[in-house]
Amino acid sequence: MSQTFSLNCPLPVQRYPQVLLAHGGGGRLMHQLIEEMFLPVFGGGAGGLQDAATLVLPGQRMALTTDSYVVSPLFFPGGNIGTLAINGTVNDLAMVGARPLYLSVGFILEEGLPMETLWQVVQAMQQAAQDVGVKIVTGDTKVVDRGKGDGIYINTTGVGLVVAAPERPPIAPASIQVGDAIVINGDVGRHGIAIMGVREGLGFGTTIVSDCAPLWSSVQGLLEAGVEVHCLRDLTRGGLASTLNELAQAADLGFVVEETQVGVLEQVRGACEILGLDPLYIANEGRFAAFIPAHQVDRALEVLQAHNPPDTVPQVVGWVQEAPQGQVVLRSQVGTDRLLEMITGEQLPRIC
Amino acid sequence: MSQTFSLNCPLPVQRYPQVLLAHGGGGRLMHQLIEEMFLPVFGGGAGGLQDAATLVLPGQRMALTTDSYVVSPLFFPGGNIGTLAINGTVNDLAMVGARPLYLSVGFILEEGLPMETLWQVVQAMQQAAQDVGVKIVTGDTKVVDRGKGDGIYINTTGVGLVVAAPERPPIAPASIQVGDAIVINGDVGRHGIAIMGVREGLGFGTTIVSDCAPLWSSVQGLLEAGVEVHCLRDLTRGGLASTLNELAQAADLGFVVEETQVGVLEQVRGACEILGLDPLYIANEGRFAAFIPAHQVDRALEVLQAHNPPDTVPQVVGWVQEAPQGQVVLRSQVGTDRLLEMITGEQLPRIC
Repeated sequence: MSQTFSLNCPLPVQRYPQVLLAHGGGGRLMHQLIEEMFLPVFGGGAGGLQDAATLVLPGQRMALTTDSYVVSPLFFPGGNIGTLAINGTVNDLAMVGARPLYLSVGFILEEGLPMETLWQVVQAMQQAAQDVGVKIVTGDTKVVDRGKGDGIYINTTGVGLVVAAPERPPIAPASIQVGDAIVINGDVGRHGIAIMGVREGLGFGTTIVSDCAPLWSSVQGLLEAGVEVHCLRDLTRGGLASTLNELAQAADLGFVVEETQVGVLEQVRGACEILGLDPLYIANEGRFAAFIPAHQVDRALEVLQAHNPPDTVPQVVGWVQEAPQGQVVLRSQVGTDRLLEMITGEQLPRIC
Repeated sequence: MSQTFSLNCPLPVQRYPQVLLAHGGGGRLMHQLIEEMFLPVFGGGAGGLQDAATLVLPGQRMALTTDSYVVSPLFFPGGNIGTLAINGTVNDLAMVGARPLYLSVGFILEEGLPMETLWQVVQAMQQAAQDVGVKIVTGDTKVVDRGKGDGIYINTTGVGLVVAAPERPPIAPASIQVGDAIVINGDVGRHGIAIMGVREGLGFGTTIVSDCAPLWSSVQGLLEAGVEVHCLRDLTRGGLASTLNELAQAADLGFVVEETQVGVLEQVRGACEILGLDPLYIANEGRFAAFIPAHQVDRALEVLQAHNPPDTVPQVVGWVQEAPQGQVVLRSQVGTDRLLEMITGEQLPRIC
């Protein structure tokens, strides 16, 4: 973790190898951290050192979303807490059909955190923000005593512009209709298993890489292709099963999912068997379900494939019907049905 | 702390006396917490259970601000982490002349937190939001393992409408002018000392109550009275001294502060002497500095007094001149000058 940044390493990293309580105290050290690390990387933005960033918004239909990130460990195959904090919030905006415009970033740092770790996370955030075209415009830094945090917690709050046509019904559970196809943009379970692999020190033969990715370009692609998107939802905490339950309840309709249509990587399935986990309940960070009219499925799959990495295949996994109201039915390979319930306990804590 | 809510105590409080990891897991327990505690108190809002709230904004000049709150202890005379989280973010919007409209709330809860404590904080947040007329529209809940947090951390991010006249220079350090009066809306040091009093178990004879308060009505009052507000800044972390240093540097001008003009309550001064602290560096949560043309001082004081509680008196504490550039001079009672520096270390950690 230490080789990549020696050239551009900012001064606070050199002078203070660890985060001190004073880095959150409002004085000289905090300003140094902001001016020498955050502002050069994130850009002065519209905020600078003001209490709030002032923005001219390009429209009046806006979206606001917030997420705190407490993933453990901070680094995992395919990303770190910083990439997660950008992509996760960007994705929440995308899920209501909003183009991500601005982000705020709130750090809660634990006293003693290696400054180098913060620096790597900050760089990853900027890279992720740049990749998706979102601007980090304001921020906040707090430091808590040793033993009262776990390295880094990050809150990102996002403001986006709703681009879905105003004359169409909103992209929301209430717009889901009987007959809609349930399309998923790829296989499930990678993120949670990538985290578990590092956390438990499990090898699983090959490294499973998180699917953590921004979803806005896929959503934008669907909208631009004229696909009537009724509802979108990313398959994060609680995985596919909990997300679909949430939506079935909100829409008061019944969903049928064909088990054989849900893609699960061989290695993910193997790891789940070892760990006694069900891939349908594992969190993803780059997967979403789209509810679209059945006649537009081909076009949607084409668009999604065009925005996917080559190893990820979108799939129609099910459809919407009247019954059982508010519930999700899983149809097995041999045609037997069972209810797919919402997760009750905590299958994998702190995966985002 | 336990008497006030038994009547309306929501079900999760009764069923789960403590926060479990599963309350942040994306499953049934998390939804229960949201549906039975957060939504009924904060209101379904535009967000409901969607990933993002969609909002129609009443204008295009908007402000965005974020703050995380990690105050210890969670409850103190005059407020708790919840009131602080609402007022602090509302105040950051007010400081750029923006009417607070919408807030997001992100909780990071520690496993084992008494559910009753969360309930009290949630109620306090709603009360504070209602008092200032801001809507909580979206949120997030994460739970971290026992020993990896400190009860409750809260991030609030605020969206406001900039109401300052667009033809005027923005309310910002760059708009500060030579000759401006520096007006403070009240005495300093109450919040930090209120926190210290609880934390250290000090009596100080009488209880010192935090000045934690929303500042929007005062700012609105100044703007509506036609006061040309050049810059505003709340006197939080680092206190009056650090805040003025920050602004002097940003404006590249010199500030003179008359020590005798800065109000400090008798008990606050006494507590500071016992603790070896300087009240000018103590954090406030309901005080701000306003930079205004000298000829408008009387009107400004009148407006500020009208919005203050009876025991709080606004005061002109100094003025702006060319030199010493980027620095703050403190003029003592006997007329001697010394530089008032920005705080270097951490005088009082985790006061907000």
